[in-house]
Amino acid sequence: MASEHGEEVKVLGKWSSPFSNRVVLSLKLKGVAYKYSEEDFANKSDDLLKYNPIHKKVPVLIHKGNPLPESLVIVEYIDDTWTNNPLLPQDPYERALARFWSKTLDDKILPALWNACWSDEKGRDKAVEEALEALKILQEALKDKRFFGGETIGLVDIAANFIGYWVAILQEIAGLELLTIEKFPKLYKWSQEFVNHPVIKESLPPRDKLFAFFKASASK
Amino acid sequence: MASEHGEEVKVLGKWSSPFSNRVVLSLKLKGVAYKYSEEDFANKSDDLLKYNPIHKKVPVLIHKGNPLPESLVIVEYIDDTWTNNPLLPQDPYERALARFWSKTLDDKILPALWNACWSDEKGRDKAVEEALEALKILQEALKDKRFFGGETIGLVDIAANFIGYWVAILQEIAGLELLTIEKFPKLYKWSQEFVNHPVIKESLPPRDKLFAFFKASASK
Repeated sequence: MASEHGEEVKVLGKWSSPFSNRVVLSLKLKGVAYKYSEEDFANKSDDLLKYNPIHKKVPVLIHKGNPLPESLVIVEYIDDTWTNNPLLPQDPYERALARFWSKTLDDKILPALWNACWSDEKGRDKAVEEALEALKILQEALKDKRFFGGETIGLVDIAANFIGYWVAILQEIAGLELLTIEKFPKLYKWSQEFVNHPVIKESLPPRDKLFAFFKASASK
Repeated sequence: MASEHGEEVKVLGKWSSPFSNRVVLSLKLKGVAYKYSEEDFANKSDDLLKYNPIHKKVPVLIHKGNPLPESLVIVEYIDDTWTNNPLLPQDPYERALARFWSKTLDDKILPALWNACWSDEKGRDKAVEEALEALKILQEALKDKRFFGGETIGLVDIAANFIGYWVAILQEIAGLELLTIEKFPKLYKWSQEFVNHPVIKESLPPRDKLFAFFKASASK
């Protein structure tokens, strides 16, 4: 397969998905050129069904003809393959903590924030409470660092892109105050550092377009 | 912390848990000596609450005084720290596939099998169908290899310990035929290779005790 496809890197993604965006961020931080193919969820491409037959979800990375699904698995693959600008720490315990936090983001923190932003009136108080608790946990993990990765963007910053960028948009649409400078000063400051990082800044979907997209979903 | 605790390795676990067992298997395969502390779910220890405050779950590994939760994160840490008898492949794509399959086991395959074994009559047909589909997917990933790791036990074999050992017990209690030699000859053969591997064999909880434990749970 390798010779047939050369070193070509391709991403199957969805522009509005933070999971797809993780792959884009990682490739941009590494300076890896890639082709991008936008997926239509209502009409999944043959490539998506062929390359991710089990989950049928974006993102999928295809490198040298080899397909790989699951955003966090892809980010680690990118870090193992292109070793410049490391995304994971070298120390085994620090590496493990980065994996723990990115897993905890997906298993617990992101669902809590998502649920709060889409909760109906009845479940809202409980959902908001859980979201605030999740943000508290995440802020404690940040400590006094500039990024979760220290002075540079790492796996956990990339895994937390939903918190760093999407949440501000979703909480505005929902009329909630979750990640604010008053409630979570350190985490809020991180989100500003994150979105203003030169590589990240040019690799996030446009705010207006995302706002309109989720606003339309919220009205359905 | 390191000097205070030396190289001590400690595991907080539960004897009946396949997740705890993954940590035990990994340490045994590496030949790492460790202390084991059995947790009582009804009365969680101060150590468990202190070392895994977010999830409050076993297993937790404590090495040089540094605590680490989440079984798959721990297995990778063990492989990064003690580099003899590698559990993950060296090739980045093969490593990524091992991570993908261990994640898919936890996210999809194990829940499907667990649900089938504990389903009530009403939901049973659908749960069994999903469990069989999950086993089919896993058997395809095994291909014609002896172990998922090739000729030696690796991350995916360890992550699949529930399929290799627990399922035979649970399906007997539930009166189901899920992983059988007729339905899944290659995967069944793998389960036999797995439980008869000399290190694995001595590191699994006793069958009779597990059977009695889950039988009692099923009667509740």
